[in-house]
Amino acid sequence: MKAILVIADGMADRPIKELDLKTPLEVARRPVLNQLAKDGVSGILDPIAPGIPPGTDTSTLALLGYDSLKVYSGRGALEAVGSGVEVLPGDIAFRCNFATVDKNLVVLDRRAGRIANKDAAKLAQSLQKVKLKKSLNVEFFFKTTVQHRGALVIRGHSLSTAISDSDPEVAGKPVLEVKPLSSLSEAKRTAKIVNDLMQEFHRVLKEHPVNRERAEHKLPVANMVLCRGAGTIPKIAPLSEVFGIRAACVAAVPLIRGVCKVAGMKLINVNGATGTIQTDYMAKGRAALEALKTNDFVLLHVKATDVASHDGNFMLKIEVVQKIDEMLGFILDRVGLNSTYLAVTADHTTSCVTGNHEGDPVPVVISGPYVRRDGVVEFGERSCARGGLNRIRGVDLMHTLMDLLGKTGKFGA
Amino acid sequence: MKAILVIADGMADRPIKELDLKTPLEVARRPVLNQLAKDGVSGILDPIAPGIPPGTDTSTLALLGYDSLKVYSGRGALEAVGSGVEVLPGDIAFRCNFATVDKNLVVLDRRAGRIANKDAAKLAQSLQKVKLKKSLNVEFFFKTTVQHRGALVIRGHSLSTAISDSDPEVAGKPVLEVKPLSSLSEAKRTAKIVNDLMQEFHRVLKEHPVNRERAEHKLPVANMVLCRGAGTIPKIAPLSEVFGIRAACVAAVPLIRGVCKVAGMKLINVNGATGTIQTDYMAKGRAALEALKTNDFVLLHVKATDVASHDGNFMLKIEVVQKIDEMLGFILDRVGLNSTYLAVTADHTTSCVTGNHEGDPVPVVISGPYVRRDGVVEFGERSCARGGLNRIRGVDLMHTLMDLLGKTGKFGA
Repeated sequence: MKAILVIADGMADRPIKELDLKTPLEVARRPVLNQLAKDGVSGILDPIAPGIPPGTDTSTLALLGYDSLKVYSGRGALEAVGSGVEVLPGDIAFRCNFATVDKNLVVLDRRAGRIANKDAAKLAQSLQKVKLKKSLNVEFFFKTTVQHRGALVIRGHSLSTAISDSDPEVAGKPVLEVKPLSSLSEAKRTAKIVNDLMQEFHRVLKEHPVNRERAEHKLPVANMVLCRGAGTIPKIAPLSEVFGIRAACVAAVPLIRGVCKVAGMKLINVNGATGTIQTDYMAKGRAALEALKTNDFVLLHVKATDVASHDGNFMLKIEVVQKIDEMLGFILDRVGLNSTYLAVTADHTTSCVTGNHEGDPVPVVISGPYVRRDGVVEFGERSCARGGLNRIRGVDLMHTLMDLLGKTGKFGA
Repeated sequence: MKAILVIADGMADRPIKELDLKTPLEVARRPVLNQLAKDGVSGILDPIAPGIPPGTDTSTLALLGYDSLKVYSGRGALEAVGSGVEVLPGDIAFRCNFATVDKNLVVLDRRAGRIANKDAAKLAQSLQKVKLKKSLNVEFFFKTTVQHRGALVIRGHSLSTAISDSDPEVAGKPVLEVKPLSSLSEAKRTAKIVNDLMQEFHRVLKEHPVNRERAEHKLPVANMVLCRGAGTIPKIAPLSEVFGIRAACVAAVPLIRGVCKVAGMKLINVNGATGTIQTDYMAKGRAALEALKTNDFVLLHVKATDVASHDGNFMLKIEVVQKIDEMLGFILDRVGLNSTYLAVTADHTTSCVTGNHEGDPVPVVISGPYVRRDGVVEFGERSCARGGLNRIRGVDLMHTLMDLLGKTGKFGA
């Protein structure tokens, strides 16, 4: 027995006036999702707890069976790991942006004109040569990922994640001084290291040939690095240890890849999987099927539903759901439900009206040979609420799936 | 967006033979509650946990989003605060009754004939003059509230709530000695202080002119103070801090007012709101609407359903539900559901058969602009169990409401 878990990021929604008080999911043509509901057991799921808006990272941790409230330790390290940056236990990692600032350090463009990868890479090479004081006894690793995005990892003794961000989050505001958020000396020390490093980075960047060239071409210069989301990798046992399974992940978004990597899953790279609306859905489906040959469990993550929701574009969200439905049809045609469990859910509700992650529950369905079919015939936020799973927590789903696969240990005798 | 939460105390019930195995709520004419069910999302709710009979205090704390199991610290302090008695962190507060005892300290009447407020006030004035030994280094404050009811607050160092009650809870039994319930010196010290004080109170009361006059008029003398429910105020952050909201409370019952006060809510006084069957329902409705103008969240509490239940009077309970339904209609007509969420629930099941709080879940409905309507068309203990909220905990309701108001913070990124 094997299982595929498809997570459609932010797919769940609230009723929308323009859709006659239906949700995008309820309006979408979704024959495969509905078939899964007919053949499966449905329910609603609180990724963290009722009314608590989950992040993509905390929810994905929960959907893999980990107690986010206990193990979550910040976004920075997860995203760094997902971008291919090595983060060891004890390292502090940050998400970084190349940005454009004026001479008073007021941010003009948080993305430095979405700087091209090759420019960013050259700048990063120079930044990695910056020398920190020997007496601080720390190393750092700065890596760019896509466009303006990057990761900073600080390695050494006595570090803390209890520090504030330097990223003001909006243009027009000055770069923030990183401050300790705790009175412990580790927090003060880490804040000082990051502030020193940001100053040094600025010094190197403002004179850099790449930026001189950008200025000549009237492109925004990348003369500052902004950092945020200080985090460590969560202390969790890999899925191979928790459930004795081989697990793989098909996802394009670095944050999801980071969570899966930390959970010991194999990361599959898929040509055309972009983490955007224009992702190659079928390529992801094919990759998941391929990965299932050598793994017991495959997580397939699609970001596009969330992107459409944050833009408030419910018509686009409907289209994306329909593409996901086609992808599920492709998968279902090939694996059947005789020896494979196929589960579908969302990592959170994203409201097309507010544009935010919301704390409403999400629908979930598990289809496969031994589930208790429940009479639900449609996959949707409301129809699934009448399903046989009733209302479960995010952390319950993986245990339920693994139980169907015979991978959970008995508690007691 | 704003929200009103209506709590009908003990409104939920079990099926009653005389009502053809329906509950009073199910039998009541309740067009507005049913309309809310049609327009809203329903469910059942365990105030604390399945099978655990909640107190009104622990349940109200939970319904405001606090984890009662962690923060509850006794009834006494909450009721004292709700009666307008100042209770500071560290103070130990008790609920008190004026009672009638014979010369062997056997309780003849736990309420001293429901002594009139003016008599009680005169007695309290004299009791406040009692001098405790200087060496104990404590102060006390004794205040009467309504009839025989009062509060005692003890302020000083090294006090503990781990002491037993002096109130035997039934007439015919002797006044109990207050005993330490822990081996810690604080508990022993507090028990001694209370015992000393009760003795001194008895000494003052038995010779008091008010009591001599009562005896002449053949009224039960108030010659003893009984105390119970030693408590401190719970250490909780106010709602303004937890959710960033302005909140108000329309309630007559001191215990509810105390919980709301501790949660940082504004207490609204309503002429004609009595906490009894004969309360002015419409005055409460009007007060809630008025409070909503300057607050984000208003809790409206009605005690009468519980009073009827404790008396086992299910016909009266049906009538009270119908009055609450009219009050809800009055509110709904004026706020509509375009920018206000209206939630209705009970703080516990009170069985008209047993006369007790029971651990059965209670029905809940949330009506308002962006809820997922679920096809439930009746508000009742059983119909709501088929609703889109499924089964939630008391502590989840406030988070769900605040999430709809956009007042919950994202956990993760």
